[in-house]
Amino acid sequence: MSKRIAGPEIERLIQLLAKVPGLGPRSARRAALHLIKKKEQLLSPLAAAMSEAADKVRICSTCGNVDTADPCMICTDPRRDAGTIIVVEDVSDLWALERAAAMNVRYHVLGGTLSPLDGIGPDQLNIRSLIDRVAGGEVKEIILAVNATVEGQTTAHYLTDQLSGFDIKVTRLAHGVPVGGELDYLDEGTLAAALRSRTAF
Amino acid sequence: MSKRIAGPEIERLIQLLAKVPGLGPRSARRAALHLIKKKEQLLSPLAAAMSEAADKVRICSTCGNVDTADPCMICTDPRRDAGTIIVVEDVSDLWALERAAAMNVRYHVLGGTLSPLDGIGPDQLNIRSLIDRVAGGEVKEIILAVNATVEGQTTAHYLTDQLSGFDIKVTRLAHGVPVGGELDYLDEGTLAAALRSRTAF
Ligand SMILES: [Zn+2]
Ligand SMILES: [Zn+2]
Repeated sequence: MSKRIAGPEIERLIQLLAKVPGLGPRSARRAALHLIKKKEQLLSPLAAAMSEAADKVRICSTCGNVDTADPCMICTDPRRDAGTIIVVEDVSDLWALERAAAMNVRYHVLGGTLSPLDGIGPDQLNIRSLIDRVAGGEVKEIILAVNATVEGQTTAHYLTDQLSGFDIKVTRLAHGVPVGGELDYLDEGTLAAALRSRTAF
Repeated sequence: MSKRIAGPEIERLIQLLAKVPGLGPRSARRAALHLIKKKEQLLSPLAAAMSEAADKVRICSTCGNVDTADPCMICTDPRRDAGTIIVVEDVSDLWALERAAAMNVRYHVLGGTLSPLDGIGPDQLNIRSLIDRVAGGEVKEIILAVNATVEGQTTAHYLTDQLSGFDIKVTRLAHGVPVGGELDYLDEGTLAAALRSRTAF
């Protein structure tokens, strides 16, 4: 608020809420007011849930996922195929793939992409631990599900190189037209890739 | 998440975040992940700020505002004109008017509008306390800053009736074209009101 119209506790709540992705300064005020009004049903439970998450969340030392257990639920789930690892840049990608529920496999979270100009080399990413998992011998296929950006593709090439000494398949996500996507709105690279990878109708 | 891929603490955090206005299920996941990654800088401080707000927030027994003090900062601010009270439906309206910083006065928060069909009569709103403030004798003007909705206007008429026995001015916000608003997009009622209340150029 430009002018101080409420105690510092409320202003601090608004300031911190404004840093949550999806909320700006304006919606942070609206959110704060809603939370205050729903003190018992929402504000107190959310405070407790945040405090508990802050206490318990760990980075999985096997795959780099976030969870409240280490190793994470995915790494210890016996119903998942330990022979296939999907490599992603970020935990958000892991969550997105799990929502698609496409494959019952394991993951490896790199924690970013190679970006020499930003000082991010192989040692800044979870690459050593990926090689170690592959060297363990159980892995049959690595699916590189990195973003279709220059950095993502650079990282994919680097990983392919590093993994070339192992007797495993290294694959990547298919390029193509998004389901429901309109051709008009797609860039030429995607269209060209979709044409090259066309399938029988 | 459709499938359980993380400990219950993380899923609970996502569920509660999805109830915050401005965040849906998708942005709640993104927000949760961001909070978890920024544990020290954001998640823990926000948990503490929420817990403190939940502890300290009160409804001002004079005006119905929310604050960490009762009476609130606005009611106890000696630099504000106690002779003018702006009546609003909700604390969010009070905050909006304060951001506009238009007047250095006091407020009264009704907590809603009259809505007989929803069982909201005068006793369900902070109307008695408004009459009591006016009866105190210090008030010279009541500005009815209720929404320009049917319920808002019904409430304004009811309040005008209730206040007619006192020697005070009862005013309302001017109708007109929003600053920066395009005439094309305005409803006819607003345009008609703006024409009627036209001012010299
Ligand atoms: Zn794991
Ligand atoms: Zn007050």
